[in-house]
Amino acid sequence: MEPSVRLIPLGGLGEIGLNMMLVESGEDLIAVDCGLMFPDDELPGIDHVIPDFTYVRARRDGFRGVLLTHGHEDHIGALPYLLREAPVPVYGTPLTLALVGERLREHGLLESADLRPMRPRDRFDVGPFGVEPIRVTHSIADGIGLAIQTPVGTIVHTGDFKLDPSPLDGEHRIQQVLTLAARHGRHAALLGMSMQKNVALAAELGYLRVPEGLLLPLEELAALPPERQVIVSTGSQGEPNSALALMAAGEHKYVQVLPGDLVIISARVIPGNERTIGRVVNALYRAGAEVLYEDNAFVHVSGHASQEDLKMMLNLTRPRYFIPVHGEYRHLLGHARLARSLGLGPDRVFLLEDGTALEVTKTSARAVAGFPAGRVLVDGKSVGDVGAVVLRDRQLLAEAGFVIVAVTVDRKGGVVAGPEIASRGFVYVEESRELLEELKRAVLAALAEGEPGAGFDREEAGARVRTAVRQLINQRFGRKPVVLPMILEA
Amino acid sequence: MEPSVRLIPLGGLGEIGLNMMLVESGEDLIAVDCGLMFPDDELPGIDHVIPDFTYVRARRDGFRGVLLTHGHEDHIGALPYLLREAPVPVYGTPLTLALVGERLREHGLLESADLRPMRPRDRFDVGPFGVEPIRVTHSIADGIGLAIQTPVGTIVHTGDFKLDPSPLDGEHRIQQVLTLAARHGRHAALLGMSMQKNVALAAELGYLRVPEGLLLPLEELAALPPERQVIVSTGSQGEPNSALALMAAGEHKYVQVLPGDLVIISARVIPGNERTIGRVVNALYRAGAEVLYEDNAFVHVSGHASQEDLKMMLNLTRPRYFIPVHGEYRHLLGHARLARSLGLGPDRVFLLEDGTALEVTKTSARAVAGFPAGRVLVDGKSVGDVGAVVLRDRQLLAEAGFVIVAVTVDRKGGVVAGPEIASRGFVYVEESRELLEELKRAVLAALAEGEPGAGFDREEAGARVRTAVRQLINQRFGRKPVVLPMILEA
Repeated sequence: MEPSVRLIPLGGLGEIGLNMMLVESGEDLIAVDCGLMFPDDELPGIDHVIPDFTYVRARRDGFRGVLLTHGHEDHIGALPYLLREAPVPVYGTPLTLALVGERLREHGLLESADLRPMRPRDRFDVGPFGVEPIRVTHSIADGIGLAIQTPVGTIVHTGDFKLDPSPLDGEHRIQQVLTLAARHGRHAALLGMSMQKNVALAAELGYLRVPEGLLLPLEELAALPPERQVIVSTGSQGEPNSALALMAAGEHKYVQVLPGDLVIISARVIPGNERTIGRVVNALYRAGAEVLYEDNAFVHVSGHASQEDLKMMLNLTRPRYFIPVHGEYRHLLGHARLARSLGLGPDRVFLLEDGTALEVTKTSARAVAGFPAGRVLVDGKSVGDVGAVVLRDRQLLAEAGFVIVAVTVDRKGGVVAGPEIASRGFVYVEESRELLEELKRAVLAALAEGEPGAGFDREEAGARVRTAVRQLINQRFGRKPVVLPMILEA
Repeated sequence: MEPSVRLIPLGGLGEIGLNMMLVESGEDLIAVDCGLMFPDDELPGIDHVIPDFTYVRARRDGFRGVLLTHGHEDHIGALPYLLREAPVPVYGTPLTLALVGERLREHGLLESADLRPMRPRDRFDVGPFGVEPIRVTHSIADGIGLAIQTPVGTIVHTGDFKLDPSPLDGEHRIQQVLTLAARHGRHAALLGMSMQKNVALAAELGYLRVPEGLLLPLEELAALPPERQVIVSTGSQGEPNSALALMAAGEHKYVQVLPGDLVIISARVIPGNERTIGRVVNALYRAGAEVLYEDNAFVHVSGHASQEDLKMMLNLTRPRYFIPVHGEYRHLLGHARLARSLGLGPDRVFLLEDGTALEVTKTSARAVAGFPAGRVLVDGKSVGDVGAVVLRDRQLLAEAGFVIVAVTVDRKGGVVAGPEIASRGFVYVEESRELLEELKRAVLAALAEGEPGAGFDREEAGARVRTAVRQLINQRFGRKPVVLPMILEA
């Protein structure tokens, strides 16, 4: 039989985030990236979303390792969960591995992890695959694409990239700020845990040159005149407890925003954050600062390829087969159309979504659907135990709260204790003595309604109580809290 | 004393929506608009937000009426709540009053309402004020601005407007669609309750000319070949149960989206709706339709003034004093800067927010702060009874659900019935017998921990139970559901 290789997307083809692509040749399997996705407001309480590892689990014996393209959460964030199930080697560039190390430490997995550094142009083998990392420009340093040699040909996985004809040679935004601060005789302070951690990491690995004496603790910086200060802070998405939000609200311990201050928000607004960012911008203006941000200035350059970059990449690689990777269906479709506009026929462009593989031989390629893929929810310490019913209940509770009725009865259904009523997220039932009495009367009446002579049926009595309480509340308030009767038997 | 007039913004200056401005002269008071605001996801379960009517309530005797600029919800939606407190005359153009009538009917207030039609250029008096409506172009028909003569001068309130050098003379988008459909031999169907209602209303009042025989019931339209169909539907914001969302998901009773179909989404994305709209667009593409929407085509024209329109308005009116109206602080600031750039000095431009009035005499103007203003929450049938604590509880419940422990004890604290445990939005406690037993053991242990010899203290026992259950859950799941102990006494 002709040898074949399968590219199996487990995430990122149909959503933004969750990037993970398997490459399978016979018994052997590698993964490119293992990212998470941040939950939207339809997933209340969920910490993050990770890919479905069912297929990897089933093929664990032949699983040779994970190759990481760069250190963003949507490419490395699910790794701790994967390594718990399959402790395979992890390949990455130095900065990427340093960031991965932080995550693994938090999960208590750093000691046992097998992290293997790779560098651009240094070719190495993983099982039957020959891997060559290729330097790419992205909004984080040390990003790479991958050329993967397989028995049927070479796969080019670009990773996240943009074409930059004049790259700053590994500098990113923060380097520019620090360099300019030093040149103009200013000192700088870093605000926010992740900012401090990442700058320290990048400086340690040589990706960032911090001029000596430039950085000061915030307390010392605050003592300098404003024209000698630069503050580099987290909070570009308006996160409510971030340093920037506290400054804007006038609640920061050391930093007060004053007329004459300039605030530059160097970030794209992540959809869904418009309101929180708007609130911060309004507050900064109100405090008298000038604000430059996405709406009024070109202060942030995307780390992703433009349409022209994508065309250039297709023209440079001239792929036999092309799969648009990473994005919602509309983005993948746009990328597929772009490829077709450059002359790639429909038999060469494959618009796949998670769980549908491309099976490639030396002479052919075809889509194969049905691989297990999906979004697995992580909530606190547990993975996958929060399902649709729990989420629906959370949404109902967010809408109108709950009302609990507890009552203890004897075997014949006579009330021994209670009813007691408690609620949260509804109204202050406890504060409204009148409503409370009315609800109790309704509960007692519902309990008394039982078929005379018939034995007491706890479940049936509970249903009667629930209906009575719901009706009263709906009639009075036009609301539908979750109503839960608890009937105890003494 | 010199006569003075006060302009008192109760809403819309500091947020988008909630438009309401009072004009006060001595004992007399009128209001321009009385709008609502749709709640964001930080106000779970809230139906809508209305202005604070405290000041109007206190000045009810001199309250002469409400003038409406146009029929959008953010200008008329809070009217039913106002009229319940102060049944004053309501002035509006015919279409605006028709839309107001619908709202009042829903609230059972139509019979008692005093609705008075006004028309552009027809001057009339309300108390000491002379009012002249001025036609403006906006995204809804029959919109007006107002010139209000007062003892100290004329106030020009533009309402929502745009300058349109070639207005379609009262046509709005739907007219164009219907006209084009008729011209090309197609039939049309209207989908969605609000679409059908508003088109019927506009046609009845003569704002819309519906070619005879053009409209068909959807079932009949569906029987025609696709090239003879036009469907006008609601759902442009991706609302989950809207006709468009159902079509996109392939769940609509009569309409199936097929390759070759063209879907035009003529709307601005309202911030916060990016994800729901994106979902609908993805699904339409997946079904094979072509989709034109904000991201890829200029299919929707804003009904609001451009920067050039605002400049033109300032140049045409040359106001003595200028208050930017309607928007968040950053929008008001932008508008104020625009006015200053046209030469209006800082003593003539007043950047006010809700609750701060402008007091104007014939020779001076000054800002006067401290009028009661704010956001009043409407939830079901009640106004203002959902406060910060209830909202915070709803958010906690959305994050992690709740766990209830009910137990009945005798006077000495001996357990008579229970403990019983129930939860929603956490995990299926009920399905995990082991967890359930563990929780019960923890509850019994916590109850038994009471000071021996001391009398049983229900509150103190409840606190112990709460702590024990919280600890167990946090340790096992890393989550923080609301834990509520209910200790009944038999």
